[in-house]
Amino acid sequence: MKSDADPWLLTPGPLSTTLETKKAMLHDWGSRDSKFIKINTQVCNALLDIANAAQTHVCVPLQGSGTFVVEATIGTLLPRHGKALVVVNGAYGRRMLKIIEVMGRACVTLETPEDTPPAVADIDTILTNDPDISHVLIVHCETTAGILNPVEAIAENVAKHRRKLIIDAMSAFGAIAIDAAQVSFDALMASSNKCLEGIPGLGFSIIRKATLEACEGNAHSLSLDLYDQWRAMEGNGQWRFTPPIHVIVAFHKAIEQFTAAGGVAGRYKRYAANCRLLIDGMSELGFQSLLSHNLQAPIIVTFKMPADPVFNFEIFYDKLKDRGYVIYPGKLTVAPSFRIGCIGNLGVIEIQGALAAVAAVMTDMGVANGAPSEVL
Amino acid sequence: MKSDADPWLLTPGPLSTTLETKKAMLHDWGSRDSKFIKINTQVCNALLDIANAAQTHVCVPLQGSGTFVVEATIGTLLPRHGKALVVVNGAYGRRMLKIIEVMGRACVTLETPEDTPPAVADIDTILTNDPDISHVLIVHCETTAGILNPVEAIAENVAKHRRKLIIDAMSAFGAIAIDAAQVSFDALMASSNKCLEGIPGLGFSIIRKATLEACEGNAHSLSLDLYDQWRAMEGNGQWRFTPPIHVIVAFHKAIEQFTAAGGVAGRYKRYAANCRLLIDGMSELGFQSLLSHNLQAPIIVTFKMPADPVFNFEIFYDKLKDRGYVIYPGKLTVAPSFRIGCIGNLGVIEIQGALAAVAAVMTDMGVANGAPSEVL
Repeated sequence: MKSDADPWLLTPGPLSTTLETKKAMLHDWGSRDSKFIKINTQVCNALLDIANAAQTHVCVPLQGSGTFVVEATIGTLLPRHGKALVVVNGAYGRRMLKIIEVMGRACVTLETPEDTPPAVADIDTILTNDPDISHVLIVHCETTAGILNPVEAIAENVAKHRRKLIIDAMSAFGAIAIDAAQVSFDALMASSNKCLEGIPGLGFSIIRKATLEACEGNAHSLSLDLYDQWRAMEGNGQWRFTPPIHVIVAFHKAIEQFTAAGGVAGRYKRYAANCRLLIDGMSELGFQSLLSHNLQAPIIVTFKMPADPVFNFEIFYDKLKDRGYVIYPGKLTVAPSFRIGCIGNLGVIEIQGALAAVAAVMTDMGVANGAPSEVL
Repeated sequence: MKSDADPWLLTPGPLSTTLETKKAMLHDWGSRDSKFIKINTQVCNALLDIANAAQTHVCVPLQGSGTFVVEATIGTLLPRHGKALVVVNGAYGRRMLKIIEVMGRACVTLETPEDTPPAVADIDTILTNDPDISHVLIVHCETTAGILNPVEAIAENVAKHRRKLIIDAMSAFGAIAIDAAQVSFDALMASSNKCLEGIPGLGFSIIRKATLEACEGNAHSLSLDLYDQWRAMEGNGQWRFTPPIHVIVAFHKAIEQFTAAGGVAGRYKRYAANCRLLIDGMSELGFQSLLSHNLQAPIIVTFKMPADPVFNFEIFYDKLKDRGYVIYPGKLTVAPSFRIGCIGNLGVIEIQGALAAVAAVMTDMGVANGAPSEVL
């Protein structure tokens, strides 16, 4: 790595972005500026198009991190006397549970291990036995393990029971296709700085218009009231409260590049190639990824911690960073692990570079093989 | 204005910032990056120093706009069975009231007209007669009219009654001195993009440490829980949820420039000179500002709408914008008005330029004089 270059971020986010995206922030706009208002509209329309949702849904952007828009969506949509079923197999499912607990609304959970997707039959049973459940909440790609959850099958079941579905698509949106005409959802949340490769500071929720129209006065918070946010923006195109203007303008520029690079199909192709190359290359060095191919989303890969007693993750992490590659600690509760991301402004060259850096650091540390204990 | 230049923003925010501040955003950082974590610490320490609060208070940053951190502070500090007295003389006082109403906690108000500061004697009477009031909330500079509220005298009275004081210092912090050793407050909120001249997307709350320590589990929202936010950051220096990294790094750069330019005293001097020049220059053109000198904060000036029937604010606004100066509509409920700001990366040259543009636009519109009806 040249000393003046930024390291490559192989993490679940914030991610590496293009210089073009960042350069869009070298200006100042007033929040009432007609050009800025037009940019907002274009961003929201592009996000609806990505989900093929323009006919049925509206897009409501929100200041803050992804968690803010997840909480805002739940607070706005889940009635004060509603009841949620939260499907959990990782930290982000658990976070939705925590959000609902803090706001004091009723909920139950269906929890599976972090490497195991929920069974639709279990959701079916729960919904059959508990007519009070009004909303089902699921994470599309749960980055705790990197698992892809079966939102299509779940959506079908939830629709059969005439309940509402909220999808946390934070880490997958823009890379893993989701089509509102095929997958019935009431809300889907994501943020500016995952697969769409903007900078952090903005979330958005794609909400069924007919659902949102009935949500006036439901939210537990003024700042996080997406009904109010939507109505105000519908009125004059302006934000209720100061927008993160530079973040939005950078997001607009990032979406332009996303579209030019082939949209969801193009992004999926690049990330899937990154993911395959990463798993294959790490495998050659003895590392073992956690998930089987059919469960692995091309977003972030969990590797089991090597058994070699010489291996020390903190040293491994620091030495990789010195070589210009930032990876991520594991979050699994079941086993020691670490993670390497496939998303952001990364391609084959950067993944090859990361793999070469991993090999060099292993040599440097005197670690012969990355294999975890159970396969030695 | 050159066609490629940004217009000057003479508004209550977002504001004009320096190129140096914006250029700080041309990089990517991981959220666990030690350099980034150090930047967070430096920003928080600098904010505490500005309020001379390092011995008694902590600084808790929060993603989102200023309103988010106002709501977060109230939600975290005001007990679920507490009661607030909200002192209102403009839109931001009313917004605090709305925040409390949405979260369903008890409150009463003391409201004065937008051009009138609250009387300390009235606050004294209310606090004497209502021992249930646990917290008093006041806006330091209420930009609705541009009025400076007497927070020092109010703080003294609130302390006498042993109630807690929360100050919304959004538009004044960094330009109008407030010293925690002299003015007793439990929390003071502001944001990155007012007088400290960063870009929007970040708020912060300076909270008395002993007060915050007792606030566990009090918040109505996970995202807006400043106790949780503080504890997590104390633990490992990291944010609970994805930070708006670029906004924070730009804020760090803005604070460096703030310090180099003489801190609060330097900023006050520049803004006060802007304000004086603006009022004098507009006065020469016949315009009349709303507030008397002793009530006018050097933040934003409200001008009464001219009586000349040829004057049309939308045309005036657009023509000024075409010349590179963005002003702001009025928000007064009592009389038609408009506003021109004194803050942001503006000095004498830009204010003179704005005044020349106003004169030229008046000629262009055929408006001889900016005087409002009551003085004609």
